Amino acid sequence: MIYDIIGTGAIGGYYGAKLARIGKDVHFLLHSDYDYVRMNGLQVNSPLGDFHLQDVNAYNNTADMPKADVVIVAMKSVNEDLLIKLLPPVLKEDTLVLLIQNGVGVEEDVQKMFPNVSLAAGLAFICSAKTKPGVVDHQDYGSINIGNYSCKNQDILIKVIEDFKEAGVEAAEVEYHEARWRKAVWNMPFNGMTVALDTTTDKLLSDPDTEKLCYDLMREVIEGANACGVKNLTMEFADKMMAMTKAMTPYSPSMKLDYDFRRPMEIHYLYTRPIEISRAHGYDMRKLAMLEAELKFKERSRIK
Amino acid sequence: MIYDIIGTGAIGGYYGAKLARIGKDVHFLLHSDYDYVRMNGLQVNSPLGDFHLQDVNAYNNTADMPKADVVIVAMKSVNEDLLIKLLPPVLKEDTLVLLIQNGVGVEEDVQKMFPNVSLAAGLAFICSAKTKPGVVDHQDYGSINIGNYSCKNQDILIKVIEDFKEAGVEAAEVEYHEARWRKAVWNMPFNGMTVALDTTTDKLLSDPDTEKLCYDLMREVIEGANACGVKNLTMEFADKMMAMTKAMTPYSPSMKLDYDFRRPMEIHYLYTRPIEISRAHGYDMRKLAMLEAELKFKERSRIK
Repeated sequence: MIYDIIGTGAIGGYYGAKLARIGKDVHFLLHSDYDYVRMNGLQVNSPLGDFHLQDVNAYNNTADMPKADVVIVAMKSVNEDLLIKLLPPVLKEDTLVLLIQNGVGVEEDVQKMFPNVSLAAGLAFICSAKTKPGVVDHQDYGSINIGNYSCKNQDILIKVIEDFKEAGVEAAEVEYHEARWRKAVWNMPFNGMTVALDTTTDKLLSDPDTEKLCYDLMREVIEGANACGVKNLTMEFADKMMAMTKAMTPYSPSMKLDYDFRRPMEIHYLYTRPIEISRAHGYDMRKLAMLEAELKFKERSRIK
Repeated sequence: MIYDIIGTGAIGGYYGAKLARIGKDVHFLLHSDYDYVRMNGLQVNSPLGDFHLQDVNAYNNTADMPKADVVIVAMKSVNEDLLIKLLPPVLKEDTLVLLIQNGVGVEEDVQKMFPNVSLAAGLAFICSAKTKPGVVDHQDYGSINIGNYSCKNQDILIKVIEDFKEAGVEAAEVEYHEARWRKAVWNMPFNGMTVALDTTTDKLLSDPDTEKLCYDLMREVIEGANACGVKNLTMEFADKMMAMTKAMTPYSPSMKLDYDFRRPMEIHYLYTRPIEISRAHGYDMRKLAMLEAELKFKERSRIK
């Protein structure tokens, strides 16, 4: 089974390298790191054990890659429009495209670009970062949940989950809509609020006003998800997420890192699309819409 | 008729000096500028003509001031709890207390401290600043609207308005509740948003997302006011305020100046109280409550 990894960063680099390490046939699309990785391979530093892959199937163009059984898309969702050109060369009739990306609405939009392709969502629970060319620092966690969006071939999903497990990655199938929204319960409050107030999760939760606000934002995500038909998601989950976040060490979510390092922020799939989708189902996420406007303003005024 | 001015800053200094200049019996409470003004008097710089008052009735303690027919309270509302000690020495049985302060709920709270005192709101439309000890820079506008809150003696209100007019200050009586809320339509969006996004009014209105957000925040104020029984306030007024603000030069509202100069912000009467009062009447100003939380967080993290 051929795996093509589109986007060899903190996520794609980690999962791709884990699969390649146990001998799976993995091919990596690289951009700025292409020359370095071709020469020097990929390095993964991890509490589970560091490892190095010397001979990496590295490409800087999907036209040169083999058609894949499974394409793992692990680019930032800010580049989603590139997929219209990147994907066709690597697709066979029954290729599974696994989108390991943040947010809500990703699969809907990619399906519009490729109406017949089989899609699944990959929900990664991982702390990792690409710190240097060709080097992935894995800090903690690492499991992946897979939600079937439009794949009619259940066998290939089972095979992917088995391959992940064989590679030492905890993996499981979950219900697609619930999984996407469940992740948004944490992502939507904390990614945006740490940027809006230029702070970290611990400071947001040690101030009584922003603690209450983060909880209110979680309520909006859950009420939005409920309006979209996700029934098995209640405020109990928000309580759990609040407790978990309080127990965490001070944390800067991915959007805060993007903001600090002047990279584009994933506002579209973390805010704009879920807010639109919820509104189309009759629920207005009012405070999250305000946060979206603040983030767009901050991104625009930063670029100037 | 004796006027006591509690708080001789940009507002109290301007209106008090205008009244004193035409010979009204005006007494000024000063704090940090007391020694300077006692020695050097008050200076008003204004496009209407600069003037200087040499012999100023200056005090640093209300116990030394004469009991007044009219007390003008023009301190920042962040010091509202000081009134419980400041006011009693200057009150007669029928003294009118005119509160020229920002926000909504000021009169309700002062009336609770002094259940029998006659209160009115002064809504000042003025750009002025205290730039140095004893110096008020009046930049533009200067009119004052007076809303009767609990004064049963209509004659004194008429007399105050006449005195202001005689002093060259445009003055009129307006309906109390409507006037307080009408001013909030501009104050609540722009004071907080310029702080939240560290910007000025023009930048907020030239970005499509924050322009829409400011309009939404005006809608919340108007819907809150409507819930509180103010009927004569519709989105037409928001349209007018948006157009007016777009026509203004780049402007930092008073809360932004307070934030930049590390002074306490008037969050309580500009946000907390109107949000509470609206909620008590069944309308939840959701986005303004989010802004309130952001401002409280910013004030707390700035002080540390």
